[in-house]
Amino acid sequence: MSAINDTVGAFVPGARVELDPLAAGRLSGRDFAVKDLFDVAGAPTTYGNPDWARTHPPAVATAPIVTALLQEGARLRGKTKTVELAYGLTGENVWHGTPLNPRAPNRFPGGSSCGSAAAVAAGLVDFALGSDTGGSVRIPASFCGLFGIRPSAGAVSLAGARPLAPSFDTPGWFARSAGLLAEIGEVLLPGGGESVGGVLLRAEEVWMNAIPEVAEALRPALELLEDRFGRTIGVRLMPEGLDTAYDHFRAVQAEEAWAALGGWVASTEVRFGPGVGERFAAAREMDPALAYAGRAFRRRMQARLRPMLAGGAVLVYPTSPCPAPLLSTNQEEQAELRAAVMGVTAIASFIGAPEITLPVGTVAGAPVGLSLTAAPGRDRALLAFAREAAAVLNLPV
Amino acid sequence: MSAINDTVGAFVPGARVELDPLAAGRLSGRDFAVKDLFDVAGAPTTYGNPDWARTHPPAVATAPIVTALLQEGARLRGKTKTVELAYGLTGENVWHGTPLNPRAPNRFPGGSSCGSAAAVAAGLVDFALGSDTGGSVRIPASFCGLFGIRPSAGAVSLAGARPLAPSFDTPGWFARSAGLLAEIGEVLLPGGGESVGGVLLRAEEVWMNAIPEVAEALRPALELLEDRFGRTIGVRLMPEGLDTAYDHFRAVQAEEAWAALGGWVASTEVRFGPGVGERFAAAREMDPALAYAGRAFRRRMQARLRPMLAGGAVLVYPTSPCPAPLLSTNQEEQAELRAAVMGVTAIASFIGAPEITLPVGTVAGAPVGLSLTAAPGRDRALLAFAREAAAVLNLPV
Repeated sequence: MSAINDTVGAFVPGARVELDPLAAGRLSGRDFAVKDLFDVAGAPTTYGNPDWARTHPPAVATAPIVTALLQEGARLRGKTKTVELAYGLTGENVWHGTPLNPRAPNRFPGGSSCGSAAAVAAGLVDFALGSDTGGSVRIPASFCGLFGIRPSAGAVSLAGARPLAPSFDTPGWFARSAGLLAEIGEVLLPGGGESVGGVLLRAEEVWMNAIPEVAEALRPALELLEDRFGRTIGVRLMPEGLDTAYDHFRAVQAEEAWAALGGWVASTEVRFGPGVGERFAAAREMDPALAYAGRAFRRRMQARLRPMLAGGAVLVYPTSPCPAPLLSTNQEEQAELRAAVMGVTAIASFIGAPEITLPVGTVAGAPVGLSLTAAPGRDRALLAFAREAAAVLNLPV
Repeated sequence: MSAINDTVGAFVPGARVELDPLAAGRLSGRDFAVKDLFDVAGAPTTYGNPDWARTHPPAVATAPIVTALLQEGARLRGKTKTVELAYGLTGENVWHGTPLNPRAPNRFPGGSSCGSAAAVAAGLVDFALGSDTGGSVRIPASFCGLFGIRPSAGAVSLAGARPLAPSFDTPGWFARSAGLLAEIGEVLLPGGGESVGGVLLRAEEVWMNAIPEVAEALRPALELLEDRFGRTIGVRLMPEGLDTAYDHFRAVQAEEAWAALGGWVASTEVRFGPGVGERFAAAREMDPALAYAGRAFRRRMQARLRPMLAGGAVLVYPTSPCPAPLLSTNQEEQAELRAAVMGVTAIASFIGAPEITLPVGTVAGAPVGLSLTAAPGRDRALLAFAREAAAVLNLPV
């Protein structure tokens, strides 16, 4: 095999990690990349941070999710950049270099699965694995004009992957067509599951929360889906407001991140890039009462939203309230953006639901995605529904 | 607070880890213990093995699941023994000493959450946290005459817990009454969820797989439940046979265990007690084709069983085909036992379903449990159903 030319800086610097397929299968002829928080035997797992790389030996085993893809015929072409410890949404990595957003070169690619999104968007690979805690697949997919999925909580193995906030962490993947997105699901997702469709639920406050240009860019797609799939109902998901959801999400995430990674952070001289170190410092100092309130809020959200989706309904809303921020965006503006974005991504993260983003529109030339979210466990049905939706919207199927 | 007297050897040797409640709440007045694979800030997490303890510093953060219980008024009374790296079912630990089975002192307590089961069965605490990958809560609960639950995959956070086979790992808990088991669920489980009941599914091959004395001891309870809850249907879950399920389970578990822990095992001079080292050695050498077949089998099981349970049906079957083995059981006999037991525990593990065991009968004076298993996500409803069942069966509610 010959190394591919990394035109966008998607891959982790250093020797490229490549593996031949282990057998012929339904992914024969496809090549893929994997976010550098999944292990590949013999290679370092940097987790996006030089001090992590320095303090952890190369992986002894390969993550089963990677092996499963190799056994179905796919070829691994490299490990992709991640935001340090997956704790950030812009896709910036000052140590490895921030990958280019191939669809909007003056903007961030989104993160934390930035390299995976960039590699797929640039056509370097057919698909890529990422991971998603609070939007780390959905946001770079939206920002880079890709199909992306965050599966149901617990649906796909995270063995051989580094944690961030375990009760929210899921693997996820990116592709340029709804069909390939679904084919990967055939390999990785649990068998069975119930159907979706029939009724679309328009999440009103998420549409109102989006900047007007985003809502504008996505509304024609919403209308086409409404025409095609019949009944649409406007719903309010969070009477408390998206900002409240963000505050609670970030508290629960911080408690889990400190439980999962605090030991390493506290015992290691870690240099972090902008923002990441501050988030760990805040996690370390956080009042436990905030996490308590956040966990209680999560239970209320689950109790409210799961029944809403139990009959197979599909929520539809803008994946992100805005397109990718410009590379010139400063830290303060990034924090505002983070709050606005994560009030939305918290929906699926809180309820453990599968969410698929479709590359539906552009704003000022930059991609914006439309999300479909279903009840936990309906991942396969949602992938099939997304494929139908893509056909209706004239997107690659 | 005063340290309680550990009459059964349930707690990890050394200084007792105790914590006062953080607030008053619905668990005020209850005390609990936690399996020593969950972190408590400032204390070592031994994971049942002296070399693990030696190579890992004391925990920096407390697992959120522990904090959540303290915040609801519960008092932590200690960390309990576990089988080394949670990789075993008898409950033996040659380094820390195998806990006594308070209900059958000449028999093993069951594992891997052996100390938690022993502590609750001996009345040292009101409830205890364990974890379950392939039976590590359900089996000691059955062997020690306790209520025990393995929740749905992904339902309860494992942040701050050590992994064994991440796609199967769940927390779990033990109590002496169905009511307390459910109250803990109110604190830890996701909100909402659908109902269960109406139809009982008698898993025929599991009843046939049980030794006759166990089936005999549990049948009166089955009949009482059938009378009370109406319709019962006999079903076959695994045409391939329980032995096949065990073989596939063990392959997938081994792949994940090596992905999760192989790095530490390979880089550390680890001394293991009987059986555990052999299992890691086998995991290291395992043919990847076996894991591939195991993952495919899991998808088929999910596709077969999830629709069976989608309407709210509850599977009912013996938790274990036998009571706890005698302490004199040798390694070869233990391996046979392991195969027979895990063909049954693999059912819920494979489909990610919640399973509750009820302390229903005895065989030669040793406890045996009856299991209720529902569709993934129906944990709260299953706990309510188990409470009703306990009332019908004259068990502590």
